[in-house]
Order: sequence, then C-alpha cells, then structure tokens
Amino acid sequence: MNNFNLHLPTQLCFGKDQHKELSKLIPANSKVLLLYGGGSIKRNGIYEKVIRELTSFDVIEFGGIEANPQYSTLLQALEVIKTQQINFMLAVGGGSVIDGTKFLASAALYSGDNSWDILEKGQRTEIGLPFGTVLTLPATGSEMNSGAVISRKETGQKLTMGGPGLFPLFSIADPCVVASLPQRQLANGIADAFTHVMEQYMTYPTSASLQDRISEGILSTLIDIAPKVMSEPENFEVAANFMWCCNMALNGIIQKGVPTDWSIHAIGHEITAAYGIDHARTLAIVLPSMYRYKIEKKETKLAQYGRRVLGISGDSRKVAELAIDQTEDFFRSLGISTKLSEYNVDNLSSFPQSCVNAMEKQRNIILGEHKDIRSADVLSILEAVI
Amino acid sequence: MNNFNLHLPTQLCFGKDQHKELSKLIPANSKVLLLYGGGSIKRNGIYEKVIRELTSFDVIEFGGIEANPQYSTLLQALEVIKTQQINFMLAVGGGSVIDGTKFLASAALYSGDNSWDILEKGQRTEIGLPFGTVLTLPATGSEMNSGAVISRKETGQKLTMGGPGLFPLFSIADPCVVASLPQRQLANGIADAFTHVMEQYMTYPTSASLQDRISEGILSTLIDIAPKVMSEPENFEVAANFMWCCNMALNGIIQKGVPTDWSIHAIGHEITAAYGIDHARTLAIVLPSMYRYKIEKKETKLAQYGRRVLGISGDSRKVAELAIDQTEDFFRSLGISTKLSEYNVDNLSSFPQSCVNAMEKQRNIILGEHKDIRSADVLSILEAVI
Repeated sequence: MNNFNLHLPTQLCFGKDQHKELSKLIPANSKVLLLYGGGSIKRNGIYEKVIRELTSFDVIEFGGIEANPQYSTLLQALEVIKTQQINFMLAVGGGSVIDGTKFLASAALYSGDNSWDILEKGQRTEIGLPFGTVLTLPATGSEMNSGAVISRKETGQKLTMGGPGLFPLFSIADPCVVASLPQRQLANGIADAFTHVMEQYMTYPTSASLQDRISEGILSTLIDIAPKVMSEPENFEVAANFMWCCNMALNGIIQKGVPTDWSIHAIGHEITAAYGIDHARTLAIVLPSMYRYKIEKKETKLAQYGRRVLGISGDSRKVAELAIDQTEDFFRSLGISTKLSEYNVDNLSSFPQSCVNAMEKQRNIILGEHKDIRSADVLSILEAVI
Repeated sequence: MNNFNLHLPTQLCFGKDQHKELSKLIPANSKVLLLYGGGSIKRNGIYEKVIRELTSFDVIEFGGIEANPQYSTLLQALEVIKTQQINFMLAVGGGSVIDGTKFLASAALYSGDNSWDILEKGQRTEIGLPFGTVLTLPATGSEMNSGAVISRKETGQKLTMGGPGLFPLFSIADPCVVASLPQRQLANGIADAFTHVMEQYMTYPTSASLQDRISEGILSTLIDIAPKVMSEPENFEVAANFMWCCNMALNGIIQKGVPTDWSIHAIGHEITAAYGIDHARTLAIVLPSMYRYKIEKKETKLAQYGRRVLGISGDSRKVAELAIDQTEDFFRSLGISTKLSEYNVDNLSSFPQSCVNAMEKQRNIILGEHKDIRSADVLSILEAVI
C-alpha cells in the first residue's frame, strides 16, 4: 500500500429535506453568489426550496453554467464576484455547476494575470473562496472532492484542476432530486460513477485489500440498483444508494494507497471536446476498448473483478474477457451506445488520428497506471470504438 | 437509508515515516502537551522519532495514561494543561491515550465545576482544545473519530463521550508500529475492529446496500489478514491493511444511514469494569452469546453475513447459526478465550446478576437496535458466557 493523506473536510448532509440546514451552514453575514445551470432547478422546485432558506443573506444569482462548464461563462461570473464583493458561493446543480464554482473559488483569490493559467499550468489551489453545494444530479462526486474539469471552446481544451482550497465547506445531498431526472442523466450518472471506481481499481493487484473490497462493493451496488434507478427513480431508497455510490466513487477514499489509471477519462475528454458527446457516454465508449487493448497487463485484476463482482468462474483469461463484455453490456443496458458510429458524428474514420493530434498538441501522451499508453496505443484504442 | 451527516475533518497521514510531517501539522507557536501511556514508546523508538520533530515547539510531557484511561489520572494532566497554559496536545499511543486526550480536550475548555459531568451527564463537546495523534496501536479507530470512553475506578463506571470538538486535527498512522506489538495486542486490535464493524452491520436488513458492502469488505479483509497479522506483524503490507481496517471500522462511514446495535460494547464495558479483562476480549466473549440469543431478529442479516463474508451456503437459519459458530472460532483462532471461566476471575456464578445490578444502577437497561434488550436479556446473555 502506498503512503496516503486522507482529508475529507466537506460536511455532507445526506437525506430528505437537508436543504433546511442551509441557513445554519452558510457563514453568517455572507454575501452569497447563487450559481446554477440551465434553469432546471426552477422547474423542479429545488430553486424555491433553496431560496426560502436564504432569506437572512444578501444573495445574487448567476445562472447558465453549461454542461462541461465553459471558461468564458465562468469569467462572467468571476466579474460578478469581484464587482459585488461576494464572499460565499452556493452551487446548486450537478458536477458541471459545482466544478465551475470550484474554478471560481480559485480564480477569485488568484493573484496571477490570467486565470486560465490555473488550468493550463496546473496550479494547485491551496486557499479558495469558500462555497457550499446543493447537489441536484448524482454522478461526478464533485460535491465531496477537491477536483474540477473546465472546458474552453475556442481552444478545444478540457483541463483539470485541484487542491485543498477546492473542497466544498458543505454539500447537501437529497436523494429526492433523482426522481425528476431524465433517463439520459440517470444513465450518465451510473456510468460515470462506475467508471470512476474502475479508473481507481482496474490496474494491477496490490496489497491494498480493503480498497479493493470497497471498490468492488460500490461496483456491485451500482450493478444491483441500476435497473431500478432507471425504472423507479422516484424510489427514495434506490435513489439514496445511487447518490451515495456516486459520492463514494470519487470522494477520495478508494484511491488512497493504490495506483490509479485515468486514461479512460483522458481520452473521453477529447471525444467530448470534439463531438460534445456526454462525458459519461465517452467513458462507456472508451472503457471496454481500453481494457481489451490492455488485457495482458490488467488480466489478473479483470479476473478478480469478474469473479468477485460479476460472479464469473473459469480460467483467468476467459473471466477477464467475459468481464469486459459484460461491462459493455451493462453500459448498453442503460441505453448508452458504446460505439462512436452509434452517435451522430462526422468524419469518423479520420477521428482517431485527429484526436491523437489534438492530445499531442496539449502535452505528450503518457497515460495509464504503467505510463505506457502512448500515441499509437490511443490510436488503436480509438480505432476499435468506431 | 436514514438521513445522515458525514464530517471527517481529521487529516489522516497514513504510511511509512509520516511522523516527519509533525512539525508542519502542529500549529506554529504551540505549547504542546505530549501525552503517552506506560512508556512502551520509549522502548520501541517511537518517542525518539516524535521528539526529533518537535524541536521548534515548547513541549511538556505527561506519561502514564493507562489502558481504560482513568479519570483520576486525567485530572492530573488537566492540572498541567491549566498551570502550563498548554494550547495543543499530541497523543502518542493507542485508543486509551487518544481517548484520554479527547477527555482533556473537552475538560480544558469546560465551563462547569465538575468535569466528570461531561461523561455522567452526556454533555456533547462542541469545541475542544486542539490535538493531534500519533497512533501506535491500531484497534479502536479513535484516531479518526470524535468519541472516547473514560473509566472511573472508584465508582466502577466506564462512560462514553463525544462531539464535533473531539476530532483530532490530524493523525499519523504508520503501519510500521505494528511490528513491535505483542501478540495479545494484535489479537485485541483485530477483535476490536471486527466487533466495531459488527455492531454497525449486524442488525436487520435495510436498504443501505453500499454500507453493507463496505462493512462486509472490512470483515472479509480482517478475516483474510488475521493469520498473517499474528504470524508476521513485521510485514508492512499486512500491517497496513490491518491499520486501515481498524480506521475504516470506526471512522463513521459505515454507520451512516443505518441502525446500529452497540449492546455488545455496553455489556463488555461492564466486564472490563468488574474484572479488568481487555476491552476487545470482552467483546469476543459477549458477541457470540448476544447473536445466539437474538438469532430470531438477526437471522436474515446473520445469513447475509454468513453467505457473503464466510461463504456458507444453505438455508437461512442454518447459515446464521454456523456464522455465529465460525465467528467465535475466528476469535479463538486469535488466542482469545470466549468464555469467562477461561479467564482468571472470581465469583463467576453470581457475576451475571451483579453485572446487571451494576448496569441498572447507572441507568435503565435498554439496548440493541430494537431497544428490546432489557435486564433479563442481559442476564441470559451473560449466563451463557460463563
């Protein structure tokens, strides 16, 4: 087991009606910027519920943060923070709104000239403007961690940032929000959380037995509940397990002490940047292809996953192969297509090479837990998903 | 799933040589009270390692905190804190030293006349004197939670306390300390962590599927590693899993959203108070008897545990019964006796009744996840462990 530092300072208020804690959770005398996305919170009643708890604060709103939050949009919010002397932010939304808020937490206190440098130069955020979240869409785990992904349309970039200054002060996670989500977002949330676990688990056997068991527990639970999440999202108990799995998948606990992969995310981000395909769906496209390509090095762990999570028996190689097939079937059972040709996209045949070119423009391609996935490998992995 | 609030503010520094972080973790200009137990840290080199990192602080020492930390001892330490104007404490030890330090964190800022009231009147500690820990003995999880158990010999009491002011600021958990532990403490640590999980898991089926899976993961891991912990405590990888299991068993995560039992602890505390038998051993004595007595209400969950963790198949009642037997065998495989007559104790035949009398003197006996374990039940459970 590798050395690790575990720090989860975010207070998670999980369950029904937890938004009623908001007035106690937000520091007194805060001037609050309320951030949200495309306005679904005004249709599903969450906006009303939140606003009712904020009467003792001076609140300014900023809506319109899009999926894959855009730097240009966030710069407008940053301007509001500065001109209005905002000292607390409340993100009401899913991973995109929360990630956008994290960028603002960093940028608001950034001393450099150009806040894009935080992303492009990989600057760690030690202290950020404090913020809380009201989660409306379980998927990314962003409500409990200190990472964010920000996009910039002009340059086609989608970059990550992090640091201890980006933990939410608190997060409200009420599973009731699941009931009003469209099927597409439910499926995305399941696939996203599932892949988050896989990126931290599906590497090679280590001595970190408990981390493996916890990861397998999240995967088993997601597989168990997925059909019910899709068919009965209004079932509170199912929704609660779904929301808690998404959180545990990326709150940091299962990555402690183990090697991680994240190559699926790196390639998936490029597919989103090129075609605008939902983040989670790009993961479901890349994952099976990645594991088939890397089956030699991942065979032992794939077989462990196949046996413990999927209940497959047989020799190691066979179990590993079946485990990949069944995982792809699992994504497809959620209504997620796992081949690019099933999406409405142009220039498919030239995409693998142009994707590699785009990745190389940003930095050398060195991916995976062994740092052995290079340009030619990405090309092969992408050619297999057309 | 029940509503829950998850807050784990303690920074856990886990792995080899993490004590080197101490000088950065302790707030600058602290006047530090270094607390420890019977002096084993001076024999095994941990004291030297810690002291070397504290050169930039004014440090006063207080040793001699015993197992089942005593109120009378802690009052002496409290006097030192007050007369020396201590503003930070560093607990170097196992659960007893850390629990004692938590009492001091509360008592140092307590405004009442009598600090025993914190325990006897169950006063929650909202703000405590800040402290960190260097864990020398994995078992109780006290390094990551906000609970403590304090004993008072004169009155035969062993009482619990808690509150958000009792979280350590940081904890150093270096698995290398396991190598120098005697067999008795290794066995105790495994049994203690195992029972901590059971008290939060072995209730009745709920919808909290992921919590079940995580609990089962900790139990499986403890069963897997136990023989190696006992035979190769110097094996870092084994020690690391052991230490991490003990932490995860009682850092709060697996209790979120589920009913908990804790009746085994309540009865076990009385056995320790009466006979001085190690805390963990009292749990191993009470657990099988408790589950046999409550098999009707716990059958479904016992069977789930038997199937998933122990790999037993068959009909539910049979699996439940075998699961209890195998759990008792597991404790005995660690060299822990599970009957009171195997310990060197007096007045065995009258003990069950005198134990019930002692418990009733403190408060009405209402234990278990259904609040249905009363005096007569405790009597039966204890009569079966003689």
